[in-house]
Amino acid sequence: MYDGIKGFRDVYPDEMAARRTAIDELEDTARRYGFREIATPALERAELWTDKSGDDIVEELYAFTDRGGREVAMTPELTPTVARMVVAKQQALSKPIKWVSTRPFWRYEQVQQGRFREFYQTNVDIFGSAEPTADAEVLAYAADALVELGLTSEDFDFRVSHRDILGGVLESIDPEVDTEAAIRAVDKREKLESNEYDGLLRDAGLSTDEAESFDALLDTEEDDLDDLVAFAETERVENAVSNLEAVLAAADDLGAREYCTLSLDTARGLDYYTGVVFECFDTTGEVGRSVFGGGRYDDLIEGFGGQPTPAVGVALGLAPLSLLCQRAGVWPDEALTTDYYVLQVGDTRETAAELTRELRERGHVTETDVAGRSFGAQLEYADSIEAETVVIVGEQDLAEGQYTVKDMESGDQTEVPVEAFPGEYDRPTYDDLA
Amino acid sequence: MYDGIKGFRDVYPDEMAARRTAIDELEDTARRYGFREIATPALERAELWTDKSGDDIVEELYAFTDRGGREVAMTPELTPTVARMVVAKQQALSKPIKWVSTRPFWRYEQVQQGRFREFYQTNVDIFGSAEPTADAEVLAYAADALVELGLTSEDFDFRVSHRDILGGVLESIDPEVDTEAAIRAVDKREKLESNEYDGLLRDAGLSTDEAESFDALLDTEEDDLDDLVAFAETERVENAVSNLEAVLAAADDLGAREYCTLSLDTARGLDYYTGVVFECFDTTGEVGRSVFGGGRYDDLIEGFGGQPTPAVGVALGLAPLSLLCQRAGVWPDEALTTDYYVLQVGDTRETAAELTRELRERGHVTETDVAGRSFGAQLEYADSIEAETVVIVGEQDLAEGQYTVKDMESGDQTEVPVEAFPGEYDRPTYDDLA
Repeated sequence: MYDGIKGFRDVYPDEMAARRTAIDELEDTARRYGFREIATPALERAELWTDKSGDDIVEELYAFTDRGGREVAMTPELTPTVARMVVAKQQALSKPIKWVSTRPFWRYEQVQQGRFREFYQTNVDIFGSAEPTADAEVLAYAADALVELGLTSEDFDFRVSHRDILGGVLESIDPEVDTEAAIRAVDKREKLESNEYDGLLRDAGLSTDEAESFDALLDTEEDDLDDLVAFAETERVENAVSNLEAVLAAADDLGAREYCTLSLDTARGLDYYTGVVFECFDTTGEVGRSVFGGGRYDDLIEGFGGQPTPAVGVALGLAPLSLLCQRAGVWPDEALTTDYYVLQVGDTRETAAELTRELRERGHVTETDVAGRSFGAQLEYADSIEAETVVIVGEQDLAEGQYTVKDMESGDQTEVPVEAFPGEYDRPTYDDLA
Repeated sequence: MYDGIKGFRDVYPDEMAARRTAIDELEDTARRYGFREIATPALERAELWTDKSGDDIVEELYAFTDRGGREVAMTPELTPTVARMVVAKQQALSKPIKWVSTRPFWRYEQVQQGRFREFYQTNVDIFGSAEPTADAEVLAYAADALVELGLTSEDFDFRVSHRDILGGVLESIDPEVDTEAAIRAVDKREKLESNEYDGLLRDAGLSTDEAESFDALLDTEEDDLDDLVAFAETERVENAVSNLEAVLAAADDLGAREYCTLSLDTARGLDYYTGVVFECFDTTGEVGRSVFGGGRYDDLIEGFGGQPTPAVGVALGLAPLSLLCQRAGVWPDEALTTDYYVLQVGDTRETAAELTRELRERGHVTETDVAGRSFGAQLEYADSIEAETVVIVGEQDLAEGQYTVKDMESGDQTEVPVEAFPGEYDRPTYDDLA
C-alpha cells in the first residue's frame, strides 16, 4: 500500500462537489467581468523566483534540475508566469488584458489548517491600465465573487492600503530607512510580539522614537488621510493618498466600497507590489489570518524585460476561502446529487440501457447497473449516490408495458406506462406522475 | 526576458476558449453518466512508477528529491493515483466507484505535433465491477463525448481488442513465450518495419514459423472469432472471446457498438491492462497515431495492496483530440465572445458602472473602460474582444435621458431611453431595439 505525500490532498467526490460549486462561482463571476481564461504551465525556470523574489518564497520552492539540465521550479504563484506571458506577446495583445485561471500551486511550507503544500487559487489580473478604475474592477470582482458564494459584508472585510503611503511616510521620517524591510515588518505586525516587531523596525533603520511615530501613523483612519499628507509634506504621499481615494470612489461606483476599510498595516508580503494593496479578512476573526489578497504591481512587467505595463490583480485561495464560507455557514453541500437510477430486474438490460440513454441525452445525471447486482444491492447503491428518483425496469412490469417510479426520499412509488416516461416532462419525478 | 520551458505551453484566451468548450463537453458528458469529479495531487512518491511500471514511463518521469528527502515524481498518468485512492478508502466507498477528472500530466518525451511534455487528459474510471456492462459504459462514454464534440462514426473508430485473447493465443502457440514482451511488440506493430517487428517477436521467444502464424491470427475478423477459440483450444481464449463479445453486445445497448471494430493488434503499451482494451483512431488516417485509449486493469488495485477490485477506464488527451477535431472541422472557434461593452464618453463613469453592474448581474459578459481611454480607443478595444453590442454612455445623450446602442457587426446604432435599457429584454441587442 502506498501513501500520498504530506500536504498534498486527495479530494473525493463529496468534497469535490462543494469545491466545484465554489470554483464555478469564482470563474462565472470573472467571466461576466470579461476576464478571459488562460492556461499556464506547472513548471517554470527557477530563475523567475530566484532572481527577484524574496527569500521566503525561494526557500519554499519545489525546484529541481530536469533531464535536459534546466533548473526548474513547480510554480508557487501565478504572477511571474502571467508577467512572462504578457512580455512574450506584448505587441499582439490588445490592452487592457484581463485574464483569469484556476489551478494548483506548490510551496514546501508548514502544513496547517487551511494551508497545504498543494493549493488551488483563482487568479484574476488586469494588465495595461494604471487607472484607479482598474484597481476598483479587481476589488469589485473579488467582492462580487464572495457575494455569489453567499457571503455578506457582515462576513468579510477588505483591508485596503497603499504601498506608496507606507513608503512615502517612511521616507519622510528617515530617508535612510530600508523601506522594503520596514514594509515586511508591517506585514507581520499583527502576527508578532510587539518587541519582535519593534526589533524588525529598528533593523530596518528606524530609531525607537521614529518607530513609535511611524507605528502610530499606521492607525490613521480614512477621514484623517490628509493628516498623513500634512505629516509627510511630499508629493509621493499626496499622490498615493489621492490615488487610494480615487480607487475607493471607483469601487463605490461598482458597489464594492462597502466591503473596504482603510488599514495601513496591510502591506502584503511580496516585494513586487507598488500601489494599492488589499487583504480579505473574516470579520469575526475566527479565520485568524488573511483569507486572500491582491494589489497593484506596476513594475514587474518591465522588470521581466517588457514595455512598462501597469498591472493589478488578486489571487483567491480555495482552502482559506472554504474556511471563511464554512465559518459563515455558506460552504456548498459536500454531497453527491443524482437525478435517476435505472434499476434492472431480470433480463431487462436492453430496455434499461435505452431509457438510461434517453435520460442522459436530456442532460440528467443518470446511472444504471454496471455490476450485475441484485435488486437490493442496486437500491442500496442508488441510495448511496443520493438518487432522487429510481426507475425500476422489471421483467413482469415490462410485460404489462410499465415501469415503477420510486421517490427515494419518501419511498413512495407508482407505475407508469412505458410510453409516458420520460414523456412530456423534461425531468419527471414521482410527484409529477403519481 | 524569460522563456517558458520546452514542451510546456502558454495557452492564451483565444485558444483557451476552444479548449474550455471541449473540456466542458467531455466533463458534462461524464457528469450525465454519473461519473463523479475528484481532484488528485500533482506529486506522488516516485515508487508508484519505479516499482511496477515499464521502463518507458520511468525514463520519462519528472522525478526529484523533495526538501523532506522524499523521492517524488510529477504524475505522468492518473491510474496509479486513483488506484492508491481506492485502496485508501476501500471500505467507505460504495461500489461501483465512478470517477472523472481533467488535469495536466507530465512526461519528459520528444516534443512533436499534438504531443507536449505537459498535457491535459480527462480520465474516466469505474472500480468494483468485472461485468461487460462496465467496459461498455466506458466505451459508450467515450463515444458520446466525441459525438458531443461534433464527431461522427465517419470520423473516428474504436479499435477493440482483448489482452487475454492475445495472451491465450500466444500461450497456446508456445507456453514458454514471454507474453508481455510479445504484446509490447504487437503494440508497436503498425509503427515498426516488418523486420524490426519480427525481431521483437523472436526476442519474445517465438520461432519464425510461430511468429508468422501468430501474426496471421492478429488479422482475425469479428465474425471469425470462433476460429481463434478452435485454434487455441483453451478455456482462457474461449472466455476472453466470450467476454469481448459480451462487451460489444452491451455497447450495442448503449448505442456505442457502431464505433467499435475488432482489431487484435491493438494492445496498449502499459503492462497493467488485463482484459478488453481499445484505442480511438482517426478513420482518415490523417492523425497518424492513436488519439486516446483505455481498457480493463483488474489486477492493479490488488497489486497496490487493496482488496481484489476489477477496474476499467479511459484517458482522453486534449491535444490529440484537438488534432482529430480540427481534421474533422469541428474544433470549437478559437475566439473570444463578449455580450456588451459599455463605452464611456465624458464624465459618465458612475452611470456606466451602474449599467455594467446590471448587465453582469443578469449573467452577461460585460466590459467597460478601466483605462481612461478615448472614444476611438474604447471602440477599437470593444472590437478586439468581439463585443456584440456597444452601449455608448455619453454626457450629451444622458442629458437627454438616452443611451446609444450600437451593433458591432453591422455598425448600425440607435438611441434608446435610459429606463428602457436593458429593461424588459434579458439581453437586448440592436435588433430588439431599432
